[in-house]
Amino acid sequence: MNWWKNHRGSSTPVWFADVCLRGIAQVMLQNNPLTGALFLAAIAWASFASDAYRLAIAAILAVIVATLTAQWLRVDPDELESGLYGYNATLVGLTLATFLAPGALLWFYVVFGAIVSVIATLATFNVLKPWGLPALTSPFVLVAWLMLLATYGFAGLSGESLPSGAVVGAYQAYHNDPLDIFGFIQGFFKSISQVFLKADGIAAVLLVAGLLVSSPAAAAFAVGGAILAVATAHLLGAESQLITGGLLGFSPVLTAITLGTVFYKPSPRVAAYAALGTAFTVVAQAATNMALTPLAIPALTAPFVLVSWMFLLPRPCLETTRPAKTPHEEGGA
Amino acid sequence: MNWWKNHRGSSTPVWFADVCLRGIAQVMLQNNPLTGALFLAAIAWASFASDAYRLAIAAILAVIVATLTAQWLRVDPDELESGLYGYNATLVGLTLATFLAPGALLWFYVVFGAIVSVIATLATFNVLKPWGLPALTSPFVLVAWLMLLATYGFAGLSGESLPSGAVVGAYQAYHNDPLDIFGFIQGFFKSISQVFLKADGIAAVLLVAGLLVSSPAAAAFAVGGAILAVATAHLLGAESQLITGGLLGFSPVLTAITLGTVFYKPSPRVAAYAALGTAFTVVAQAATNMALTPLAIPALTAPFVLVSWMFLLPRPCLETTRPAKTPHEEGGA
Amino acid sequence: MNWWKNHRGSSTPVWFADVCLRGIAQVMLQNNPLTGALFLAAIAWASFASDAYRLAIAAILAVIVATLTAQWLRVDPDELESGLYGYNATLVGLTLATFLAPGALLWFYVVFGAIVSVIATLATFNVLKPWGLPALTSPFVLVAWLMLLATYGFAGLSGESLPSGAVVGAYQAYHNDPLDIFGFIQGFFKSISQVFLKADGIAAVLLVAGLLVSSPAAAAFAVGGAILAVATAHLLGAESQLITGGLLGFSPVLTAITLGTVFYKPSPRVAAYAALGTAFTVVAQAATNMALTPLAIPALTAPFVLVSWMFLLPRPCLETTRPAKTPHEEGGA
Repeated sequence: MNWWKNHRGSSTPVWFADVCLRGIAQVMLQNNPLTGALFLAAIAWASFASDAYRLAIAAILAVIVATLTAQWLRVDPDELESGLYGYNATLVGLTLATFLAPGALLWFYVVFGAIVSVIATLATFNVLKPWGLPALTSPFVLVAWLMLLATYGFAGLSGESLPSGAVVGAYQAYHNDPLDIFGFIQGFFKSISQVFLKADGIAAVLLVAGLLVSSPAAAAFAVGGAILAVATAHLLGAESQLITGGLLGFSPVLTAITLGTVFYKPSPRVAAYAALGTAFTVVAQAATNMALTPLAIPALTAPFVLVSWMFLLPRPCLETTRPAKTPHEEGGA
Repeated sequence: MNWWKNHRGSSTPVWFADVCLRGIAQVMLQNNPLTGALFLAAIAWASFASDAYRLAIAAILAVIVATLTAQWLRVDPDELESGLYGYNATLVGLTLATFLAPGALLWFYVVFGAIVSVIATLATFNVLKPWGLPALTSPFVLVAWLMLLATYGFAGLSGESLPSGAVVGAYQAYHNDPLDIFGFIQGFFKSISQVFLKADGIAAVLLVAGLLVSSPAAAAFAVGGAILAVATAHLLGAESQLITGGLLGFSPVLTAITLGTVFYKPSPRVAAYAALGTAFTVVAQAATNMALTPLAIPALTAPFVLVSWMFLLPRPCLETTRPAKTPHEEGGA
Repeated sequence: MNWWKNHRGSSTPVWFADVCLRGIAQVMLQNNPLTGALFLAAIAWASFASDAYRLAIAAILAVIVATLTAQWLRVDPDELESGLYGYNATLVGLTLATFLAPGALLWFYVVFGAIVSVIATLATFNVLKPWGLPALTSPFVLVAWLMLLATYGFAGLSGESLPSGAVVGAYQAYHNDPLDIFGFIQGFFKSISQVFLKADGIAAVLLVAGLLVSSPAAAAFAVGGAILAVATAHLLGAESQLITGGLLGFSPVLTAITLGTVFYKPSPRVAAYAALGTAFTVVAQAATNMALTPLAIPALTAPFVLVSWMFLLPRPCLETTRPAKTPHEEGGA
């Protein structure tokens, strides 16, 4: 780590890699290159395990393109070096490669999406300034939704694992199994790994390790958020397959990290408030899944963004760590 | 009333009841405990008449939980004592109990929704600060939509009287009856009572009485708004059953009260402006009903919120009563 | 032109016509009565060519009603005289007359929509003030969407050429023809004329002429934007019929004019940025088309508004012409 710090200032390639790794780390709101490296290892492992190397390649390509775009647009250097222009691109790259069929146009689309994600990030920063709110992953959600929806109108880009469209209908509890301990553990791990769009236990361990080196509190809230999300979803009678696949838990994990560690000075009252927000994110996740049913696109992390903003706006009522800066600068190596 | 005023300061239970009653009164933008009591009587009567006591219980439970939550979050005492943290919870409780099947989880859901409605109210107050706009019932709409949509993914909570999903299709005028005088009167009364989600003439009379004791102008605009809404909907050829059921009139009634009495100094120009907004709320109501068709959730008071904001933003062009405070403090006992 | 300028100050009818013509010119962000006259000629020709005179009549009626409404609301005189309260009404009138069946209620609806469009414009100006963003055609999109959606609930107003509702489904490339040069030219012209909802080559020529007399740069960017949009849509494999009909190009044309000429000081960097925004508007157009499929309403210029706002917010990173005023005052006769 010392070698890295010394060379970051003098060597351009090391500096560039540092910025890109922090960009990957910011997906879970951390500003730490080692965290980024562990997150990248999680992505690489999950890509390898699912025999889809293009996922890792798309993520790396996207964060590199985004960093170059941010330099071209002469963004604020401090924000750039904190990785704030990389995390949305990382997620756009992963999402496009996950849901669309491979092909030459996919790579054009990944590069295009990465460039636009930087502009969307800049735009979101400006939009949110009056309220001192962080952008979170909203630029990613906006760009990815538009690009995924558009593929239904383009022959060159077809969805491989996109959901199919339908109107909202009454829930049929086919698999209302009592969630046993193994299902619970599976749901717990996959809730964490699904933050990077993958259902993989080893990736989850690498992600928690990445959080630990940057912020033990963030790791604790991620673990607690995953447990609470799986329990809430089961209590309300969600489909077992969604729960064990982690598909109702990844947004709550991010909400827990955001509300629990990055913004508010920890206290029992803040922990209760964060738990409330985490549980409500499960409701918002189920609601967003339904709202997008006719459009045949995934909810991504929109429920996390919505609920986190809703719970961050009443800040003056809770003890804040800092007045009104974006969360992403928090932490740091 | 004098006894009440004297005891409000000294007795905690009386103070608490006062805050809750004002919370119910704020559903129609009044800050008056007697108005709240008459509104509560309307809710109780409609629950009794439709043999669904749980509606009144849910409304009372929700406003109590919300008041306790607001105290826990240390909200502004003046806002709390004006009932500003109670009206959204009242509506969330009524809505969940109206549309979902009874059961243990329903009560968990009502309590959960009431708590979250306070946070949503705080968040909305902050979001709207740059424009000096009132929150109106937007926190209720947001929380209720999310919670109703989510039930389609939860086996534990099933919709009892939710609409069924479909794509938008051409309107078939099966029942394009000439609206006779009885249909008109029915539509008029139910447009007022549907503000509290009930089609009941006696409830409507109690609601108008509640408005009268707080603000005769508000009662007049509510009556005028209901008449204008029924007439506009009939002119445009809306389905007779929707009109007579009051389902195209409750949002316009709220718009009329808001635009006509609470914000603008009354004048012929302001009355014409309020009438315009009231009539356009009928269009917005029909549009929102359609927009939500594929999602199988009701429009609630979203059209009222949207059109009222749209018509309040050009304030500088009309004579305003006050520069930029929330409307809810207006009136008062 | 000199005669016009001299009489504008002394003669009320000439002044009124001047304001209305500028209102029509502002559809493409120009403040010039001659441009408005050429645009009106384009509308009139296209109405004549498609044997639907009511289109031109609706546009003229709407802009006149809107100008009178703006006077009644005592709007800012400079904004009024720049045509800023006319362009949304012009588009509302054209849209309602294009998509709805003729009849007495249609004219009521056009007048109603024109009045409300002025209030929506005032509201949007206020909403966007914190960011110094222009309203663009967002008031038109909001009012037209609500009014078109509502017709599905009204027997008095039926859609004549509205799309039919469906859930989003996988794209079937029935007509993935190689786009020949004639298709390209057709798509180019119709992309420009579809800004006024018409597929007509002569109208396109009149529109470009209108731009030329006001701003040669605007004309150049409109032409460049149309070429880039057709090329991008074809590259991504969009349906040939949509491309040649100009239905994927009218929003990008407006984005190109907005980003390229009205806001940023021209430079290679700005041109590249505008090209990026123009190409992404094609993606956003396809996405919006899909998002509105279940609601059976057209996308109108919503993709232009969304992408232009997204690309205008990072202004501080690019050289701006002016700090924070609406674009519409730019140009001028």
